[in-house]
Amino acid sequence: MEDQGIFYGVGVGPGDPELLTLKAVRVLEQVNAVFVPRAGQEKESLALSIAARFLRDEARVVELLFPMTRDREQLEASWDEAARQVRQLLDRGESAAFLTVGDPMLYSTYIYIFKRITAWGYPVETVPGIPSVCAAAAAAGFPLAEGDETMTLVPWNRNSRPDPGWLQSLNSLALLKVSSDVDGIIDSLKEAGFLQESVLVTRCGHQDERIETDLASLKGMPVNYFSLILARKEKL
Amino acid sequence: MEDQGIFYGVGVGPGDPELLTLKAVRVLEQVNAVFVPRAGQEKESLALSIAARFLRDEARVVELLFPMTRDREQLEASWDEAARQVRQLLDRGESAAFLTVGDPMLYSTYIYIFKRITAWGYPVETVPGIPSVCAAAAAAGFPLAEGDETMTLVPWNRNSRPDPGWLQSLNSLALLKVSSDVDGIIDSLKEAGFLQESVLVTRCGHQDERIETDLASLKGMPVNYFSLILARKEKL
Repeated sequence: MEDQGIFYGVGVGPGDPELLTLKAVRVLEQVNAVFVPRAGQEKESLALSIAARFLRDEARVVELLFPMTRDREQLEASWDEAARQVRQLLDRGESAAFLTVGDPMLYSTYIYIFKRITAWGYPVETVPGIPSVCAAAAAAGFPLAEGDETMTLVPWNRNSRPDPGWLQSLNSLALLKVSSDVDGIIDSLKEAGFLQESVLVTRCGHQDERIETDLASLKGMPVNYFSLILARKEKL
Repeated sequence: MEDQGIFYGVGVGPGDPELLTLKAVRVLEQVNAVFVPRAGQEKESLALSIAARFLRDEARVVELLFPMTRDREQLEASWDEAARQVRQLLDRGESAAFLTVGDPMLYSTYIYIFKRITAWGYPVETVPGIPSVCAAAAAAGFPLAEGDETMTLVPWNRNSRPDPGWLQSLNSLALLKVSSDVDGIIDSLKEAGFLQESVLVTRCGHQDERIETDLASLKGMPVNYFSLILARKEKL
């Protein structure tokens, strides 16, 4: 029907393949190719390990290795190159899905490729996924927000920790990328009044999922890279 | 096997039945009963209209009408009564699912029932759902957060609008319950520097879904109850 293929961004959720949506499964069962981002520290792509069972045998899998850097120029170049690879497929009339752990519109590499493919005028459809924050909250039995409470996602950066006064202006927090600064986070949450109601969830939805409600006990301990912390100011 | 049934909280996503997870479908296909919250202004339950096709013919459907009030005592009494109804079923060894539009741990009535059933020691499992914010972002092609940006959900309350200085301390916003104060929101977003990159999404995933990127044009216009606004300080 079309000379151009469709580009799909598909959220595959945080780990449990049962957390894919029916729509994500339908798209994965249809596409000619999938693009899979792989971070430097992964042996194999987490997104692919979740989605592989739904792909057609003949679907092409293209791994994209993005550099683990904060150098904007290097990053832009890698996104340009990935978008160019997607475009080649679309121009051949093939459909392609870009896989994202969690939701595609939250902190994903998909966003950068999406912008480029959209700007070039190709048809794009984004299929939302279960964010890791929602899966962690469900696993830990930790309500994220009630009534008029605000809820804030904060990618933690040990080199520019948020101001405790700013944290105090919030009701509920989900801290992401926490593994490199757990001690600093514990101090910040304590100072801002969030430590009492907090939980660390590691490798949510995987066999070795771990839920730790006594954050203070983690001081000085190593924490898995795939971890997040939920915390609230008000008592649950 | 068990004398007690299991209580499930099931997120059914914002509207499109294809956005249910495989796990949600499996649970809905198994349970003896579903509890369905209905807000005062709905003719029929939105959650039930999304989930009905997945239920067994013999599954019992229990509608729970919660009062549209801010009176805490009245609300607590209605949650107590709902939890009591759930408990009766579990004591008969039946399994029950409580349906939630979006995700069960975000602004849902489920949270209040969940706390009671958990405190009583019954087995509870929460099945995450696609939050309306993620579905709206996907539909509008509006990335929610990149890199180190924070992302904040704000239930809008026209009687205590957030301080513009506080809004300025945030990177990305999802404003909920916006329909009663769209003019006030437009002014606030403009003052805090968020109006340029903003979008209103109404009835996401339904036949009559609407996406409006020129928020200023909505001044003085009526807006559907099932609407939310996404806004960013940085250019997309």
